[in-house]
Amino acid sequence: MSESPAFSSRYNESLRLFERAASVIPGGIYGHHSPVSVLPLASPYYAQSAYGGYYRDVDGNQYLDLMCGYGPIVLGHVTAEVEEAAEHQRRIGNCFNHPAPVMVELAEWLTTHIDGADWTVFGKNGSDMTSWALQVAREYTSRRKLLKVRGAYHGTHPWATPGHGGLIEEDKAHVHDFVWNDLESFEAQINAHGNDLAAVMITPYHHPVFDDQQWASEGFLKQVQRRCREIGALLILDDIRAGFRLNTAGSHVTVGIEPDLMCYCKAIANGYPVSACAGVAALKPAASRVFLTGSYWNGAVGMAAALATLRVLERENIPKRLARVGTVLQEGMRSLGKKHALPVRVSGPPALPYMRFENDPAFHRQQRFCALCMEGGIFLHPHHNWFLCAAHTEDDMRHALGIMDAAMGRMENE
Amino acid sequence: MSESPAFSSRYNESLRLFERAASVIPGGIYGHHSPVSVLPLASPYYAQSAYGGYYRDVDGNQYLDLMCGYGPIVLGHVTAEVEEAAEHQRRIGNCFNHPAPVMVELAEWLTTHIDGADWTVFGKNGSDMTSWALQVAREYTSRRKLLKVRGAYHGTHPWATPGHGGLIEEDKAHVHDFVWNDLESFEAQINAHGNDLAAVMITPYHHPVFDDQQWASEGFLKQVQRRCREIGALLILDDIRAGFRLNTAGSHVTVGIEPDLMCYCKAIANGYPVSACAGVAALKPAASRVFLTGSYWNGAVGMAAALATLRVLERENIPKRLARVGTVLQEGMRSLGKKHALPVRVSGPPALPYMRFENDPAFHRQQRFCALCMEGGIFLHPHHNWFLCAAHTEDDMRHALGIMDAAMGRMENE
Repeated sequence: MSESPAFSSRYNESLRLFERAASVIPGGIYGHHSPVSVLPLASPYYAQSAYGGYYRDVDGNQYLDLMCGYGPIVLGHVTAEVEEAAEHQRRIGNCFNHPAPVMVELAEWLTTHIDGADWTVFGKNGSDMTSWALQVAREYTSRRKLLKVRGAYHGTHPWATPGHGGLIEEDKAHVHDFVWNDLESFEAQINAHGNDLAAVMITPYHHPVFDDQQWASEGFLKQVQRRCREIGALLILDDIRAGFRLNTAGSHVTVGIEPDLMCYCKAIANGYPVSACAGVAALKPAASRVFLTGSYWNGAVGMAAALATLRVLERENIPKRLARVGTVLQEGMRSLGKKHALPVRVSGPPALPYMRFENDPAFHRQQRFCALCMEGGIFLHPHHNWFLCAAHTEDDMRHALGIMDAAMGRMENE
Repeated sequence: MSESPAFSSRYNESLRLFERAASVIPGGIYGHHSPVSVLPLASPYYAQSAYGGYYRDVDGNQYLDLMCGYGPIVLGHVTAEVEEAAEHQRRIGNCFNHPAPVMVELAEWLTTHIDGADWTVFGKNGSDMTSWALQVAREYTSRRKLLKVRGAYHGTHPWATPGHGGLIEEDKAHVHDFVWNDLESFEAQINAHGNDLAAVMITPYHHPVFDDQQWASEGFLKQVQRRCREIGALLILDDIRAGFRLNTAGSHVTVGIEPDLMCYCKAIANGYPVSACAGVAALKPAASRVFLTGSYWNGAVGMAAALATLRVLERENIPKRLARVGTVLQEGMRSLGKKHALPVRVSGPPALPYMRFENDPAFHRQQRFCALCMEGGIFLHPHHNWFLCAAHTEDDMRHALGIMDAAMGRMENE
């Protein structure tokens, strides 16, 4: 580590913990939280505490949190109204032999508020729900094939994982890709698999890693939906990333489609482990035939937290607030790019913004920018979209822009 | 409902909630908690509150809880030491962009205490871990096949699910069954698939539904292990059901084997959603190549609860306590069978007991017995093993035996 004095001064305790972890955990930190996949030696590795829109790492460095736990924190860390609802349930029990009444209340909230949702089920992780939705589609259609967008992330189940380890040919045998906003590539897959096509899975907009976020072109989503209806395939919306940040009625309302199945996770419970799949009435019998359970899946505390989170999101119109605050950040970043003559690309909805540099294929400029921002006190990700929460203010964004301004200033002179 | 006045008096509120649920949730209640699969109209459907070894349903009926949430509640509902550890973490944050230090501490605890565990990873559900373990075995061996015991439950991922809905042929293409305690059937599968065999997955003892629990015959597990080593397949222990109730060093110590991968869930965190897979050093590189993540998988609160739970389990030697208290129940049930001249079969470890009647192929006698016990104030399951927790006392078991005595007395006269 001697080559990186900045690391040794700022992230000593992170490194010390990582060295302990590496001896008892494969890779030390795995999955999307792995520092190796983000900014090795130029990022905190462990978090100590968080409140509202900020957190501290284990070395005591404070950050404006622009990743929000990769999405779950939608109101702010340790939000009183959610914690109180969870605490009330916790005092009377969590993990019973039966569901608690809050499961029914949560299902009623979701089916009342999510456009087109006639029923819902719950899991613990996004991948649980996208995978179950695929099974429901196969059960309903008696077909095998799934079309998904190239580069879209739908979880870690073998049919979906972006990883390579431990897979066999059968895992993805009936999963095929088309290109976002490319109706020709979509139509080619329809032609190849249409009569065996169980479902098409899409996100409300495309949010790949290592690239700009992309809204659908005019007519793209509608045409995908129309073709699904024509050939009798289901349209599954993976709204795990964006759900409830754009629209409390579901992101499909924002982008103007009517999916048959809709998957949620992340923002649904402000960090408590809950995921959900909602669907239209016609699928309810098929849904009841696809076995779904888990050791803690009736856990009442997470459902109480979800209900409290969703009520705040709707009552306070948090999507509108996130759009307003995020617009300050996005417009500010565009202005900074001009000021510093850096080719800045800002993409995605304001509530889930992303910024990168053009002509930066290996992301070296981007990594330098993020490392400088972290030194300045903002945590953001070089190649994954960012997330705002309701605890963030316009002042927080101006604070972030000041740090970004200084970072770009240093980069101009390097 | 008019044919069941007992239901309408005792379970009114459960039924009212179920009717609401049925309109917004496929099947109303799904998975292993479904009342349709347990005792329709003769069991509570919803839980209101719980404390220690008891809970109340939404109609105010109180039960000695002999299912403990189907396993997770190992210390007792709402156990102070676990809740305090979780609360401390909750106040400073749960769902960060990075792991919290408690992830390292938990991994260190597990690798220190579980016999043969050199590393560990975490998930949210048992099925996450058995499925990931299978991938690790495939990655390590570059082979495809899995052998498992017929009737053993390893989760809801498509390769494992006991359900039928939404499956395709590829899901179980390389999963094959052998019969517990039948080395001939095991050897036949080894002969058929040995050179393509990635792993054999076993439980420490066989705990099927709708049947007695069965310990391994003398030499059975050792021979399975020996053959795995000979042909280069991994031995995976699914210790999700029994883990930490038999032995805080892992159930494999109790049954005398040395698995390569060991999967835990349920009792690990007294109801907080955490699962874990531990493994031997040789598999660490392969393990680090199998992508593993989830929206909440670094959640620090569950890990703090797990660490607190495991420390109590070890410090208080809870497995020994559960064995002692469970033996009172098991011996008492055998005596009751003799007293009432009913052909009672008691099976399984005392900490995870089960009782059923001989010559009761459709489980009618069993269902009647369980329904009467519920009326008397014990919740137990007609066709799934039961679970004890540390809050249960010998007096609780004598109380349960009194209720069972009365139930069998009524059954004699029916």
